[in-house]
Amino acid sequence: MCQKTGKYLKQIINEELNRVKKELYFNAAARYFDETGYKHFKISDLAKELETSVGTIYNLFGSKEELYVEYLILKLETFLVNLKSNEGSDPLENLKTYLKYKYAIFIQTEHERNKPITSDPYFFHKLDISNHSVVDELHQYLIRQLRSLIPCKNTNHKHLAIIFKKISDGFIESYLYGECQSDHIVDETIEIFFQGVRIKN
Amino acid sequence: MCQKTGKYLKQIINEELNRVKKELYFNAAARYFDETGYKHFKISDLAKELETSVGTIYNLFGSKEELYVEYLILKLETFLVNLKSNEGSDPLENLKTYLKYKYAIFIQTEHERNKPITSDPYFFHKLDISNHSVVDELHQYLIRQLRSLIPCKNTNHKHLAIIFKKISDGFIESYLYGECQSDHIVDETIEIFFQGVRIKN
Repeated sequence: MCQKTGKYLKQIINEELNRVKKELYFNAAARYFDETGYKHFKISDLAKELETSVGTIYNLFGSKEELYVEYLILKLETFLVNLKSNEGSDPLENLKTYLKYKYAIFIQTEHERNKPITSDPYFFHKLDISNHSVVDELHQYLIRQLRSLIPCKNTNHKHLAIIFKKISDGFIESYLYGECQSDHIVDETIEIFFQGVRIKN
Repeated sequence: MCQKTGKYLKQIINEELNRVKKELYFNAAARYFDETGYKHFKISDLAKELETSVGTIYNLFGSKEELYVEYLILKLETFLVNLKSNEGSDPLENLKTYLKYKYAIFIQTEHERNKPITSDPYFFHKLDISNHSVVDELHQYLIRQLRSLIPCKNTNHKHLAIIFKKISDGFIESYLYGECQSDHIVDETIEIFFQGVRIKN
Protein backbone atom coordinates (compact mmCIF):
# COMPACT_ATOMS: atom_id res chain seq x y z
CA MET A 1 0.00 0.00 0.00
CA CYS A 2 1.62 3.29 -1.06
CA GLN A 3 1.57 6.19 1.35
CA LYS A 4 -1.02 8.04 -0.69
CA THR A 5 -3.53 5.16 -0.67
CA GLY A 6 -2.82 4.69 3.02
CA LYS A 7 -3.68 8.29 3.71
CA TYR A 8 -6.80 8.00 1.60
CA LEU A 9 -8.03 4.94 3.48
CA LYS A 10 -7.24 6.57 6.78
CA GLN A 11 -9.29 9.59 5.72
CA ILE A 12 -12.26 7.38 4.83
CA ILE A 13 -12.01 5.56 8.13
CA ASN A 14 -11.77 8.84 10.05
CA GLU A 15 -14.71 10.36 8.25
CA GLU A 16 -16.84 7.28 8.88
CA LEU A 17 -15.74 7.21 12.52
CA ASN A 18 -16.64 10.86 12.88
CA ARG A 19 -20.04 10.28 11.32
CA VAL A 20 -20.82 7.39 13.68
CA LYS A 21 -19.45 9.35 16.61
CA LYS A 22 -21.63 12.34 15.78
CA GLU A 23 -24.67 10.07 15.44
CA LEU A 24 -24.04 8.38 18.78
CA TYR A 25 -23.45 11.68 20.54
CA PHE A 26 -26.49 13.18 18.85
CA ASN A 27 -28.76 10.34 20.04
CA ALA A 28 -27.48 10.79 23.56
CA ALA A 29 -27.98 14.55 23.31
CA ALA A 30 -31.54 14.05 22.02
CA ARG A 31 -32.45 11.85 25.00
CA TYR A 32 -30.91 14.49 27.21
CA PHE A 33 -32.97 17.28 25.57
CA ASP A 34 -36.10 15.17 26.01
CA GLU A 35 -35.48 15.15 29.73
CA THR A 36 -34.19 18.65 30.41
CA GLY A 37 -35.56 20.88 27.64
CA TYR A 38 -33.49 23.57 25.97
CA LYS A 39 -33.31 26.04 28.82
CA HIS A 40 -31.78 23.70 31.38
CA PHE A 41 -29.61 21.86 28.88
CA LYS A 42 -25.92 22.41 29.45
CA ILE A 43 -23.19 21.29 27.09
CA SER A 44 -20.97 20.76 30.14
CA ASP A 45 -23.55 18.41 31.73
CA LEU A 46 -23.91 16.47 28.50
CA ALA A 47 -20.14 16.14 28.25
CA LYS A 48 -20.01 14.87 31.82
CA GLU A 49 -22.83 12.39 31.13
CA LEU A 50 -20.98 11.07 28.08
CA GLU A 51 -17.62 11.14 29.83
CA THR A 52 -16.11 13.33 27.15
CA SER A 53 -14.89 16.92 26.88
CA VAL A 54 -16.88 20.05 26.17
CA GLY A 55 -14.54 20.65 23.22
CA THR A 56 -15.52 17.33 21.59
CA ILE A 57 -19.19 18.28 21.65
CA TYR A 58 -18.51 21.75 20.25
CA ASN A 59 -16.33 20.26 17.52
CA LEU A 60 -19.11 17.91 16.47
CA PHE A 61 -22.06 20.31 16.64
CA GLY A 62 -20.75 23.88 16.57
CA SER A 63 -22.96 25.27 19.33
CA LYS A 64 -25.81 24.48 21.69
CA GLU A 65 -28.13 26.27 19.29
CA GLU A 66 -27.09 24.25 16.24
CA LEU A 67 -27.35 21.01 18.20
CA TYR A 68 -30.85 22.00 19.29
CA VAL A 69 -31.95 22.80 15.74
CA GLU A 70 -30.81 19.31 14.65
CA TYR A 71 -32.81 17.89 17.54
CA LEU A 72 -35.92 19.86 16.61
CA ILE A 73 -35.69 18.67 13.02
CA LEU A 74 -35.49 15.05 14.17
CA LYS A 75 -38.62 15.55 16.29
CA LEU A 76 -40.41 17.32 13.48
CA GLU A 77 -39.63 14.47 11.11
CA THR A 78 -41.23 12.05 13.57
CA PHE A 79 -44.27 14.36 13.76
CA LEU A 80 -44.51 14.41 9.95
CA VAL A 81 -44.16 10.62 9.59
CA ASN A 82 -46.93 10.14 12.17
CA LEU A 83 -49.18 12.60 10.35
CA LYS A 84 -48.64 11.10 6.92
CA SER A 85 -49.15 7.51 8.04
CA ASN A 86 -52.50 8.54 9.53
CA GLU A 87 -53.61 10.75 6.62
CA GLY A 88 -57.06 9.62 5.50
CA SER A 89 -59.53 10.76 2.86
CA ASP A 90 -61.37 13.26 5.07
CA PRO A 91 -59.44 16.55 4.99
CA LEU A 92 -61.20 17.97 8.05
CA GLU A 93 -60.26 14.87 10.04
CA ASN A 94 -56.70 15.26 8.80
CA LEU A 95 -56.57 18.82 10.11
CA LYS A 96 -57.90 17.58 13.43
CA THR A 97 -55.20 14.90 13.50
CA TYR A 98 -52.58 17.60 12.98
CA LEU A 99 -53.99 19.55 15.91
CA LYS A 100 -54.32 16.47 18.09
CA TYR A 101 -50.68 15.49 17.59
CA LYS A 102 -49.52 19.06 18.06
CA TYR A 103 -51.55 19.65 21.20
CA ALA A 104 -50.59 16.24 22.61
CA ILE A 105 -47.10 17.61 23.02
CA PHE A 106 -48.38 20.14 25.50
CA ILE A 107 -51.49 18.62 26.91
CA GLN A 108 -51.01 15.23 28.48
CA THR A 109 -54.22 13.66 29.63
CA GLU A 110 -54.71 10.38 31.39
CA HIS A 111 -56.04 8.92 28.16
CA GLU A 112 -52.95 9.81 26.19
CA ARG A 113 -50.14 8.18 28.01
CA ASN A 114 -47.78 8.14 25.05
CA LYS A 115 -44.69 10.20 25.51
CA PRO A 116 -44.82 13.62 23.87
CA ILE A 117 -42.40 14.20 21.01
CA THR A 118 -40.75 16.96 23.01
CA SER A 119 -40.97 18.36 26.49
CA ASP A 120 -39.98 21.83 25.37
CA PRO A 121 -43.06 24.07 25.39
CA TYR A 122 -41.42 26.49 22.95
CA PHE A 123 -40.76 23.74 20.44
CA PHE A 124 -43.05 25.12 17.76
CA HIS A 125 -41.97 28.71 18.21
CA LYS A 126 -38.39 27.76 17.62
CA LEU A 127 -39.20 25.65 14.60
CA ASP A 128 -40.32 28.65 12.64
CA ILE A 129 -36.79 29.92 12.92
CA SER A 130 -35.34 27.01 10.98
CA ASN A 131 -35.73 26.84 7.21
CA HIS A 132 -35.61 23.07 6.86
CA SER A 133 -37.50 21.14 4.18
CA VAL A 134 -39.51 19.32 6.86
CA VAL A 135 -41.13 22.66 7.82
CA ASP A 136 -42.14 23.04 4.19
CA GLU A 137 -43.51 19.47 4.09
CA LEU A 138 -45.69 20.23 7.11
CA HIS A 139 -47.03 23.27 5.26
CA GLN A 140 -47.71 21.02 2.26
CA TYR A 141 -49.71 18.65 4.47
CA LEU A 142 -51.89 21.54 5.65
CA ILE A 143 -52.18 22.96 2.13
CA ARG A 144 -53.44 19.58 0.79
CA GLN A 145 -56.25 19.49 3.35
CA LEU A 146 -57.19 23.14 2.80
CA ARG A 147 -57.30 22.68 -0.99
CA SER A 148 -59.81 19.87 -0.56
CA LEU A 149 -61.89 21.86 1.89
CA ILE A 150 -61.77 25.20 0.05
CA PRO A 151 -61.49 24.28 -3.66
CA CYS A 152 -61.50 27.90 -4.77
CA LYS A 153 -58.93 28.99 -7.35
CA ASN A 154 -58.58 32.50 -5.97
CA THR A 155 -57.65 31.25 -2.52
CA ASN A 156 -54.03 31.32 -1.41
CA HIS A 157 -53.88 28.03 0.45
CA LYS A 158 -50.36 28.51 1.75
CA HIS A 159 -51.40 31.80 3.35
CA LEU A 160 -54.32 29.98 5.00
CA ALA A 161 -52.05 27.12 6.12
CA ILE A 162 -49.79 29.61 7.90
CA ILE A 163 -52.75 31.32 9.58
CA PHE A 164 -54.08 27.89 10.63
CA LYS A 165 -50.71 26.94 12.12
CA LYS A 166 -50.46 30.24 13.97
CA ILE A 167 -53.94 29.99 15.45
CA SER A 168 -52.97 26.58 16.82
CA ASP A 169 -49.76 28.11 18.22
CA GLY A 170 -52.03 30.68 19.90
CA PHE A 171 -54.07 27.94 21.58
CA ILE A 172 -50.86 26.36 22.86
CA GLU A 173 -49.63 29.65 24.28
CA SER A 174 -53.01 30.36 25.81
CA TYR A 175 -53.04 26.88 27.36
CA LEU A 176 -49.54 27.38 28.77
CA TYR A 177 -50.74 30.64 30.36
CA GLY A 178 -53.65 28.73 31.88
CA GLU A 179 -56.16 30.69 29.78
CA CYS A 180 -57.84 27.83 27.94
CA GLN A 181 -58.98 24.33 28.78
CA SER A 182 -57.88 21.26 26.89
CA ASP A 183 -61.36 19.68 26.56
CA HIS A 184 -62.51 21.18 23.26
CA ILE A 185 -59.29 22.75 22.09
CA VAL A 186 -59.21 20.96 18.71
CA ASP A 187 -62.80 21.87 17.85
CA GLU A 188 -62.35 25.47 19.03
CA THR A 189 -59.30 25.90 16.83
CA ILE A 190 -61.18 24.52 13.83
CA GLU A 191 -64.11 26.84 14.60
CA ILE A 192 -62.09 30.06 14.93
CA PHE A 193 -60.17 29.28 11.77
CA PHE A 194 -63.10 28.37 9.52
CA GLN A 195 -65.30 31.20 10.76
CA GLY A 196 -62.37 33.56 10.34
CA VAL A 197 -61.53 32.69 6.74
CA ARG A 198 -65.05 32.06 5.50
CA ILE A 199 -65.40 32.83 1.82
CA LYS A 200 -67.47 35.94 1.27
CA ASN A 201 -70.85 35.69 -0.43
CA MET B 1 -10.16 56.38 55.77
CA CYS B 2 -9.85 52.90 57.26
CA GLN B 3 -9.16 49.97 54.97
CA LYS B 4 -12.69 48.67 55.32
CA THR B 5 -14.33 51.95 54.27
CA GLY B 6 -11.78 52.20 51.46
CA LYS B 7 -12.76 48.80 50.17
CA TYR B 8 -16.41 49.73 50.45
CA LEU B 9 -15.97 52.92 48.40
CA LYS B 10 -13.89 51.09 45.84
CA GLN B 11 -16.67 48.52 45.53
CA ILE B 12 -19.26 51.24 44.95
CA ILE B 13 -17.06 52.88 42.34
CA ASN B 14 -16.43 49.56 40.60
CA GLU B 15 -20.10 48.65 40.58
CA GLU B 16 -21.04 52.03 39.16
CA LEU B 17 -18.26 51.78 36.58
CA ASN B 18 -19.46 48.34 35.59
CA ARG B 19 -23.02 49.55 35.26
CA VAL B 20 -21.99 52.46 33.00
CA LYS B 21 -19.66 50.19 31.06
CA LYS B 22 -22.43 47.64 30.52
CA GLU B 23 -24.81 50.40 29.41
CA LEU B 24 -22.31 51.84 26.92
CA TYR B 25 -21.47 48.41 25.53
CA PHE B 26 -25.14 47.51 25.38
CA ASN B 27 -26.01 50.64 23.37
CA ALA B 28 -23.23 49.84 20.94
CA ALA B 29 -24.40 46.22 20.71
CA ALA B 30 -27.98 47.36 20.07
CA ARG B 31 -26.91 49.57 17.15
CA TYR B 32 -24.92 46.63 15.87
CA PHE B 33 -27.95 44.27 16.14
CA ASP B 34 -30.06 46.86 14.29
CA GLU B 35 -27.66 46.62 11.37
CA THR B 36 -26.79 42.93 11.27
CA GLY B 37 -29.71 41.09 12.86
CA TYR B 38 -29.24 38.15 15.21
CA LYS B 39 -28.08 35.56 12.72
CA HIS B 40 -25.10 37.51 11.38
CA PHE B 41 -24.22 39.06 14.71
CA LYS B 42 -20.87 37.88 16.05
CA ILE B 43 -19.55 38.63 19.51
CA SER B 44 -16.05 38.67 18.00
CA ASP B 45 -17.06 41.34 15.44
CA LEU B 46 -18.68 43.44 18.15
CA ALA B 47 -15.54 43.14 20.29
CA LYS B 48 -13.43 44.25 17.31
CA GLU B 49 -15.78 47.18 16.64
CA LEU B 50 -15.53 48.28 20.27
CA GLU B 51 -11.79 47.62 20.43
CA THR B 52 -12.22 45.30 23.39
CA SER B 53 -11.89 41.56 24.03
CA VAL B 54 -14.46 38.83 23.51
CA GLY B 55 -14.03 37.97 27.20
CA THR B 56 -15.13 41.46 28.28
CA ILE B 57 -18.39 41.13 26.34
CA TYR B 58 -19.08 37.66 27.72
CA ASN B 59 -18.34 38.87 31.25
CA LEU B 60 -20.86 41.70 30.89
CA PHE B 61 -23.66 39.83 29.15
CA GLY B 62 -23.18 36.09 29.68
CA SER B 63 -23.91 34.97 26.12
CA LYS B 64 -25.01 36.14 22.68
CA GLU B 65 -28.49 34.86 23.52
CA GLU B 66 -28.78 36.81 26.78
CA LEU B 67 -27.48 39.95 25.12
CA TYR B 68 -30.09 39.52 22.39
CA VAL B 69 -32.93 39.08 24.87
CA GLU B 70 -31.91 42.36 26.54
CA TYR B 71 -31.93 43.97 23.11
CA LEU B 72 -35.39 42.60 22.28
CA ILE B 73 -36.78 43.88 25.56
CA LEU B 74 -35.42 47.37 24.83
CA LYS B 75 -37.11 47.31 21.41
CA LEU B 76 -40.32 46.00 22.88
CA GLU B 77 -40.36 48.78 25.47
CA THR B 78 -40.10 51.32 22.63
CA PHE B 79 -42.98 49.55 20.86
CA LEU B 80 -45.09 49.71 24.03
CA VAL B 81 -44.34 53.41 24.68
CA ASN B 82 -45.33 54.23 21.09
CA LEU B 83 -48.56 52.26 21.44
CA LYS B 84 -49.56 53.81 24.75
CA SER B 85 -48.83 57.39 23.69
CA ASN B 86 -51.12 56.86 20.69
CA GLU B 87 -53.88 55.01 22.55
CA GLY B 88 -57.20 56.75 21.85
CA SER B 89 -60.80 56.17 22.86
CA ASP B 90 -61.67 53.91 19.91
CA PRO B 91 -60.61 50.34 20.79
CA LEU B 92 -60.83 49.11 17.20
CA GLU B 93 -58.53 51.93 16.09
CA ASN B 94 -56.17 50.98 18.93
CA LEU B 95 -56.02 47.39 17.69
CA LYS B 96 -55.29 48.69 14.20
CA THR B 97 -52.51 50.88 15.62
CA TYR B 98 -50.98 47.79 17.24
CA LEU B 99 -51.06 45.97 13.91
CA LYS B 100 -49.75 48.98 11.99
CA TYR B 101 -46.73 49.35 14.28
CA LYS B 102 -46.09 45.63 14.29
CA TYR B 103 -46.36 45.26 10.53
CA ALA B 104 -44.29 48.41 9.94
CA ILE B 105 -41.32 46.46 11.25
CA PHE B 106 -41.61 44.09 8.32
CA ILE B 107 -43.32 46.08 5.65
CA GLN B 108 -41.60 49.30 4.75
CA THR B 109 -43.55 51.44 2.34
CA GLU B 110 -42.56 54.71 0.80
CA HIS B 111 -44.97 56.50 3.08
CA GLU B 112 -43.41 55.08 6.22
CA ARG B 113 -39.84 56.13 6.06
CA ASN B 114 -39.22 55.84 9.78
CA LYS B 115 -36.72 53.21 10.74
CA PRO B 116 -38.24 49.93 11.88
CA ILE B 117 -37.72 49.05 15.53
CA THR B 118 -35.79 45.96 14.46
CA SER B 119 -34.48 44.46 11.25
CA ASP B 120 -34.82 40.92 12.56
CA PRO B 121 -37.80 39.22 10.89
CA TYR B 122 -38.05 36.71 13.73
CA PHE B 123 -38.24 39.42 16.35
CA PHE B 124 -41.76 38.59 17.50
CA HIS B 125 -41.23 34.84 17.49
CA LYS B 126 -38.30 35.21 19.81
CA LEU B 127 -40.13 37.55 22.12
CA ASP B 128 -42.57 34.87 23.14
CA ILE B 129 -39.62 33.03 24.61
CA SER B 130 -38.89 35.74 27.16
CA ASN B 131 -41.10 36.15 30.21
CA HIS B 132 -40.52 39.84 30.73
CA SER B 133 -43.12 42.17 32.21
CA VAL B 134 -43.18 44.17 28.96
CA VAL B 135 -44.66 41.12 27.17
CA ASP B 136 -47.39 41.08 29.79
CA GLU B 137 -48.00 44.83 29.36
CA LEU B 138 -48.48 44.31 25.63
CA HIS B 139 -51.05 41.63 26.43
CA GLN B 140 -52.75 44.10 28.79
CA TYR B 141 -52.95 46.67 25.98
CA LEU B 142 -54.71 44.14 23.74
CA ILE B 143 -56.95 42.94 26.59
CA ARG B 144 -58.11 46.55 27.28
CA GLN B 145 -59.22 46.99 23.68
CA LEU B 146 -60.91 43.59 23.51
CA ARG B 147 -62.81 44.23 26.77
CA SER B 148 -64.27 47.41 25.26
CA LEU B 149 -65.15 45.68 22.02
CA ILE B 150 -66.52 42.46 23.52
CA PRO B 151 -67.97 43.48 26.91
CA CYS B 152 -69.16 39.97 27.70
CA LYS B 153 -68.42 38.57 31.16
CA ASN B 154 -68.04 35.00 29.98
CA THR B 155 -65.32 35.90 27.51
CA ASN B 156 -61.69 35.18 28.36
CA HIS B 157 -60.08 38.31 26.97
CA LYS B 158 -56.51 37.19 27.57
CA HIS B 159 -57.16 34.06 25.51
CA LEU B 160 -58.52 36.26 22.73
CA ALA B 161 -55.55 38.65 23.01
CA ILE B 162 -53.16 35.73 22.48
CA ILE B 163 -55.12 34.47 19.48
CA PHE B 164 -55.15 38.02 18.05
CA LYS B 165 -51.39 38.32 18.49
CA LYS B 166 -50.80 34.94 16.86
CA ILE B 167 -52.99 35.71 13.86
CA SER B 168 -50.92 38.84 13.31
CA ASP B 169 -47.74 36.73 13.62
CA GLY B 170 -49.27 34.52 10.92
CA PHE B 171 -49.71 37.48 8.57
CA ILE B 172 -46.09 38.44 9.12
CA GLU B 173 -44.86 34.93 8.36
CA SER B 174 -47.11 34.74 5.31
CA TYR B 175 -45.77 38.09 4.11
CA LEU B 176 -42.19 36.95 4.61
CA TYR B 177 -42.96 33.87 2.49
CA GLY B 178 -44.37 36.18 -0.20
CA GLU B 179 -47.88 34.76 0.29
CA CYS B 180 -49.73 37.93 1.19
CA GLN B 181 -49.70 41.55 0.05
CA SER B 182 -49.21 44.47 2.36
CA ASP B 183 -52.06 46.62 1.00
CA HIS B 184 -54.93 45.51 3.22
CA ILE B 185 -53.02 43.45 5.76
CA VAL B 186 -54.34 45.35 8.81
CA ASP B 187 -57.98 45.10 7.73
CA GLU B 188 -57.61 41.44 6.77
CA THR B 189 -56.17 40.60 10.18
CA ILE B 190 -59.04 42.40 11.89
CA GLU B 191 -61.54 40.58 9.66
CA ILE B 192 -60.19 37.05 10.24
CA PHE B 193 -60.00 37.65 13.97
CA PHE B 194 -63.47 39.12 14.48
CA GLN B 195 -65.19 36.65 12.19
CA GLY B 196 -63.30 33.85 13.92
CA VAL B 197 -64.22 34.73 17.48
CA ARG B 198 -67.73 36.02 16.86
CA ILE B 199 -69.99 35.45 19.82
CA LYS B 200 -72.51 32.74 19.05
CA ASN B 201 -76.18 33.67 18.74
